[in-house]
Amino acid sequence: MKVLLTGFEPFGGERVNPSYEAIKNMPDIIENIQIVKAEIPTVFKKSIQVLEEKIIEHNPDIVICVGQAGGRFEISIERIAINADDARIPDNEGNQPIDEKIFSDGDAAYFSKLPIKAIAEEIKKFGIPAAVSNTAGTFVCNHVMYGLLYLIDKKYANIKGGFIHVPFIPQQVINKFNTPYMSLEQITQALIIAVKASVNYEEDIKITQGKIC
Amino acid sequence: MKVLLTGFEPFGGERVNPSYEAIKNMPDIIENIQIVKAEIPTVFKKSIQVLEEKIIEHNPDIVICVGQAGGRFEISIERIAINADDARIPDNEGNQPIDEKIFSDGDAAYFSKLPIKAIAEEIKKFGIPAAVSNTAGTFVCNHVMYGLLYLIDKKYANIKGGFIHVPFIPQQVINKFNTPYMSLEQITQALIIAVKASVNYEEDIKITQGKIC
Amino acid sequence: MKVLLTGFEPFGGERVNPSYEAIKNMPDIIENIQIVKAEIPTVFKKSIQVLEEKIIEHNPDIVICVGQAGGRFEISIERIAINADDARIPDNEGNQPIDEKIFSDGDAAYFSKLPIKAIAEEIKKFGIPAAVSNTAGTFVCNHVMYGLLYLIDKKYANIKGGFIHVPFIPQQVINKFNTPYMSLEQITQALIIAVKASVNYEEDIKITQGKIC
Amino acid sequence: MKVLLTGFEPFGGERVNPSYEAIKNMPDIIENIQIVKAEIPTVFKKSIQVLEEKIIEHNPDIVICVGQAGGRFEISIERIAINADDARIPDNEGNQPIDEKIFSDGDAAYFSKLPIKAIAEEIKKFGIPAAVSNTAGTFVCNHVMYGLLYLIDKKYANIKGGFIHVPFIPQQVINKFNTPYMSLEQITQALIIAVKASVNYEEDIKITQGKIC
Repeated sequence: MKVLLTGFEPFGGERVNPSYEAIKNMPDIIENIQIVKAEIPTVFKKSIQVLEEKIIEHNPDIVICVGQAGGRFEISIERIAINADDARIPDNEGNQPIDEKIFSDGDAAYFSKLPIKAIAEEIKKFGIPAAVSNTAGTFVCNHVMYGLLYLIDKKYANIKGGFIHVPFIPQQVINKFNTPYMSLEQITQALIIAVKASVNYEEDIKITQGKIC
Repeated sequence: MKVLLTGFEPFGGERVNPSYEAIKNMPDIIENIQIVKAEIPTVFKKSIQVLEEKIIEHNPDIVICVGQAGGRFEISIERIAINADDARIPDNEGNQPIDEKIFSDGDAAYFSKLPIKAIAEEIKKFGIPAAVSNTAGTFVCNHVMYGLLYLIDKKYANIKGGFIHVPFIPQQVINKFNTPYMSLEQITQALIIAVKASVNYEEDIKITQGKIC
Repeated sequence: MKVLLTGFEPFGGERVNPSYEAIKNMPDIIENIQIVKAEIPTVFKKSIQVLEEKIIEHNPDIVICVGQAGGRFEISIERIAINADDARIPDNEGNQPIDEKIFSDGDAAYFSKLPIKAIAEEIKKFGIPAAVSNTAGTFVCNHVMYGLLYLIDKKYANIKGGFIHVPFIPQQVINKFNTPYMSLEQITQALIIAVKASVNYEEDIKITQGKIC
Repeated sequence: MKVLLTGFEPFGGERVNPSYEAIKNMPDIIENIQIVKAEIPTVFKKSIQVLEEKIIEHNPDIVICVGQAGGRFEISIERIAINADDARIPDNEGNQPIDEKIFSDGDAAYFSKLPIKAIAEEIKKFGIPAAVSNTAGTFVCNHVMYGLLYLIDKKYANIKGGFIHVPFIPQQVINKFNTPYMSLEQITQALIIAVKASVNYEEDIKITQGKIC
């Protein structure tokens, strides 16, 4: 069993991106699961190209893309990616698409192939805040999640894939007012738990995790 | 030109639902636009049935469904509805679906047919906080928005439709800690502006309103 | 019975200050109570001088100073002012004192002379969010509240005085993310209720309104 | 040099209190500074009695009382304690004083004797969120801080004392919505830094840390 984990380059003026910082800290083997790690550029289009290159190179069974969700309190297991690029800020190469489709022949949205509620519950069992999220935004995180699920839909049907958002780490919020964060150690631990749950749960569990709005 | 506006019954222990309170206060004619108002039950399935009955009865050009978004700070113009019912609490008849599709033959998601950014900008011009939102949740609001867009897609192609979430009104938050709200007057005014913008903008405007996550 | 109400000049880059905007909208007579209104400069020291001039000029029975509390959700009836100027930003004349006493012969703090809990309860009865607050900050608002209570303590023992903080109004938060606000109409109404309660309650009521921290 | 550190018993339905959990984890000697640790009951009056017993028993040079501030994002170095008990919930023995003075012969408030800004800055240097706070609330935390500073004022003039509030730890917020937290490791590290700064800074530093309100 092989799991590809991707994190992003820092963006938006940050010096680090907790998604890749946490992935770097993960072991290479977790309970017989081989972990492959990759850093992906925070750039529209190129991010999906790099992701597909890594998929071709490593032929993983599961792909979990991870991104930074500044302002969120908990590990967010994303439910769905939407076919819309709408950038509030430029990406790392200056692109700022507004209301463009990611793939013109793609569905309006794709649901995660991961057992999202099982992952959230397993993480919470270890005392780490986690929840299912219903939006990955409209920046490069949603773009890559959509791209991954589009590729799975069109070409790599035997891969299970999805996306996890992680909060800022403490050093990033020192000069931000009332902004939530999580320790890098807990983010790393949460991703290890997510890998195990993704392997161990063939199907997701049926529990309430919805949001009223 | 005829616009159908729907609000919801109170739910979740609230005595009022600001969505229908605001609609009740709206005039019946706005600049030659005829306004038809309906209250919809906060109940899975039945809400969509009532919505379709109103569409058949009134044959509107535009349908704007409005719902309460407790915890949000501003008028939220929803971008997309997803094919998922996932109820955190029971609806007004005790139904609590978990991870069920709304329509088995529906798309994963449908995008709003309204000029969402134009609506948000027009509302802000009047000093009322507004923004585009990328999730309508997974409760009856998303359910009705999805149902409306599904019906448009399958049967009523000449209708423009979409969904707007409104904050609590002040009386609802008296005993809630640090919870945002908006005056009923401003919500009503925002919906009037939204009606006009929906009629006046053939196409949406291209401005940044995306969210990083 | 005569009540002096003071609001502040805009500061911190804002174009309006809701404290004085609301006071301007108030009637000049409320149930036989004469209302005197004054705008006070958002400037350390000078603000207290102007306040004392107004007290000497009008000889009020009650003085309620009102200020803007950006970021707060409700009308805040302040409990206490502390003998500390500690400015995060310069005032309107460029002064930025750090950890200075307001009056070297003043107490460490002074408690409000107003019936703070009665005021909060009366405001809430009208469906307007309100609460007792235990800090007026360390900028010009706390400075003026402290100055008022110092003056009462030293020279004007027959005056009842205190301070009320009000949220932003909607137009101020259009470009601020997730920032609470209240309509100017409700702020004005809350201040009218506060005036009546200040006159009508000889003593404060005994109800829970404390904060754990 | 001897420093007495006190934490509280759990209260308000919590199973742990991060203040004492962190203190338990601290070393007994930090750079020649002897650390004495005590758990204090979350009970009005009795908490101050236990505190004074510990002061008499250990004769410390510095006393730092630590408490849980649920809802705060960062380590809060408290500036001031006020002469008011106003309990929103009952304490651990069922007492719920409303608007009572803590000591009838005490000042309206006492300022911390610790170098509060130096402590906050030193903690931030290590990438841990910290800030000066202007209110310790009106529950047992403020009660103990006031009691400590009253005792120093009346009887133990050579002791330096003050109060630090710490956020929830992650396990406490698993079922709380959008509630900030800090890892126990970082809270412990922050308290170690606070001890060192309290010993090393004879006087506080002069930097901006005030709040507008």
